[in-house]
Amino acid sequence: MDYSFADRTKNFESSAVRDILNVIQQGNVISFAGGLPCEELFPLAAVQSAYEKVLASGNASMQYGLTEGFTPLREGISEWMKDKGIKTDPSRILLTTGSQQAIYLFSRIMISDGDVVLTENPTYLSALQVFRSFGANVVSVEGDEHGMNPDDLEEKIKRCKPKFIYVIPTFSNPDGKVWSTERRQRLLELCYQYDVLVLEDDPYGEIKFDESITYPSVASFDHKQTHVLYTSTFSKTVVPALRTGWITGPAEVIAMMSQAKQMVDLHSSSIDQQALYFVLRDFDLKGHIQQLRKEYYKRMMLMQDYLNKLTPGTFTWKEPKGGMFLWVKGQEDLNTTALLSEAVAKGVAFVPGVQFYAMNPKENTFRLNYSYPSPEKINLGMDRLVSVLLNGVPV
Amino acid sequence: MDYSFADRTKNFESSAVRDILNVIQQGNVISFAGGLPCEELFPLAAVQSAYEKVLASGNASMQYGLTEGFTPLREGISEWMKDKGIKTDPSRILLTTGSQQAIYLFSRIMISDGDVVLTENPTYLSALQVFRSFGANVVSVEGDEHGMNPDDLEEKIKRCKPKFIYVIPTFSNPDGKVWSTERRQRLLELCYQYDVLVLEDDPYGEIKFDESITYPSVASFDHKQTHVLYTSTFSKTVVPALRTGWITGPAEVIAMMSQAKQMVDLHSSSIDQQALYFVLRDFDLKGHIQQLRKEYYKRMMLMQDYLNKLTPGTFTWKEPKGGMFLWVKGQEDLNTTALLSEAVAKGVAFVPGVQFYAMNPKENTFRLNYSYPSPEKINLGMDRLVSVLLNGVPV
Repeated sequence: MDYSFADRTKNFESSAVRDILNVIQQGNVISFAGGLPCEELFPLAAVQSAYEKVLASGNASMQYGLTEGFTPLREGISEWMKDKGIKTDPSRILLTTGSQQAIYLFSRIMISDGDVVLTENPTYLSALQVFRSFGANVVSVEGDEHGMNPDDLEEKIKRCKPKFIYVIPTFSNPDGKVWSTERRQRLLELCYQYDVLVLEDDPYGEIKFDESITYPSVASFDHKQTHVLYTSTFSKTVVPALRTGWITGPAEVIAMMSQAKQMVDLHSSSIDQQALYFVLRDFDLKGHIQQLRKEYYKRMMLMQDYLNKLTPGTFTWKEPKGGMFLWVKGQEDLNTTALLSEAVAKGVAFVPGVQFYAMNPKENTFRLNYSYPSPEKINLGMDRLVSVLLNGVPV
Repeated sequence: MDYSFADRTKNFESSAVRDILNVIQQGNVISFAGGLPCEELFPLAAVQSAYEKVLASGNASMQYGLTEGFTPLREGISEWMKDKGIKTDPSRILLTTGSQQAIYLFSRIMISDGDVVLTENPTYLSALQVFRSFGANVVSVEGDEHGMNPDDLEEKIKRCKPKFIYVIPTFSNPDGKVWSTERRQRLLELCYQYDVLVLEDDPYGEIKFDESITYPSVASFDHKQTHVLYTSTFSKTVVPALRTGWITGPAEVIAMMSQAKQMVDLHSSSIDQQALYFVLRDFDLKGHIQQLRKEYYKRMMLMQDYLNKLTPGTFTWKEPKGGMFLWVKGQEDLNTTALLSEAVAKGVAFVPGVQFYAMNPKENTFRLNYSYPSPEKINLGMDRLVSVLLNGVPV
């Protein structure tokens, strides 16, 4: 039969990264494509002990829970956020199935067909997919290495009257960018002035290579607690399989998102939420994150060593200050989508940059992930990749 | 600031049942309101052992997983469904965060603003909320104790051209109804004839009081495997906190739902899915379900004993053959919403029936849950309720 799907499905796009991942998983390809955290460092003992505590806490812990999520975990997150300079309280925190769900639910309550969402360019591709699935007109704001260009931002706020502005100010996906403090403050000033909301996505903020530097979140400047929705996740710092993220912001917005969530799934796994509560309470998560920082820095530097072997000027990148990605630009005439087929044939994969662009895609860019592959795999994979890159570009 | 939410939020309705539950949880009220399974019988040892196996299976089990869900669990479910006469395979099964999410995702890919969805009357209120949140025009089909009236169904299919028909044919929520086999077959015939999809919601089918009777699912008649989407859950048979449901149906529809799910949350908790895989593999779930059946039957009979104390003719109900609910009708002039305040004041709660109606709500109906309260609580609570009912109606 002919299944006449809803009109909105015409705006659905499958994640090309996930499609690539599916292909890769079958073969002998070393993948720098996915945004996966390092498995070797998963704190399995802590997670195991946490589940034991949940199961020991009795039958009532296995019952249906609140849509908003397990209250003691929301209290724990509230404390955790204090250390990041973000004032919140459990009543303004919604637990979600990963921060992906926070982006989805916020979009569902905010975006009507044709509404404008402002984003960086490039930005997180699954967020773009969500916005577009609701019929959003995604408009990208010009920027440089310090963040969005305030003049272009103001001009587009005035002209497009956006429903909200989506940003990843700390170690962005895909380009690892870190916004300057001034740009963060200026963004918020403009949002106050024109009454626009910010959705601040911060999955990678904890993975900073220099611990002495503080990257204040945009939310930490929102003293009125009216204009910023801040979302983060434990997928990068504990384990992804727990699928637990959260979002905090103005009470009225969080309440509307809870109502939306009730329809989507009643609530996320409360066993996992309870386990995370025990992880936060009993495990040295901060110490664990320090370990991640060191290991990811080592892997990034190792990967960069290989890039340094390329002919100077043919490929450029900025050494990331944290996060999980190296973002590389080739010469103007390079097409990294074509290059990917060649790379996969040689046994290595990356993500072509075009997918991350809301507008004006640059075909000569690509993203490398250094958190997932072991140093051995980085050596092997980068050897392969460098040989492809050396052949693939005019020297 | 004034948060200008998307237009669709005007169609959002909070679940009144959940609001009532929140109030009740604070007080000393015995609740027959929620649709919660019995906590005392949760198979905690089996669940505990399953999580131990997941954690022992190593670091890779904690990584990101497939949107479609953990493959070995989908294989296990495929086998489980065979016993119910439903032919499927893992590629046509999507794991969801409870069957609530299956209803949500199916609605998201099917319903455009103004599309008609046909339902029973009364029916599951959270499904009604989801359909309406997508702008559906919900039209109810007339029915009796055997299911939807085929003539009215055909007339409404022809007139309204529905996007799909939503049914709970076995131990419906709220009214515990069981469709006759003939009505199930007739529904499918009409769907074949007019090319309409069925969403068959079957959370309670396993909880049947007479094990010798088979209630064939509508999906089991869909030999073409083209017209029925079948959803169920482990929330009622294992534990709700795992939040694991599934949906199976035509490959094309399942694929589109997976794409929708990718945007909603990438995937559901894979720790929970892996744990359920071990529960299915190593635990006598069928034996456990037999225990549930016996205990729920006992509780239902106990509750019914109290209803039998009421003046004959003032209240009517049909003894349920399974499921978790007793559905009671009072005399025409009874308003059960008003009655609820009185009942809560006396320390007992139920759900007024009006909320479950898609159209023409009957104010003289209410729903009682017998699975959650212990026999002691049923005794205490029904004493209170009977005294309220005796006072509240003209005798």
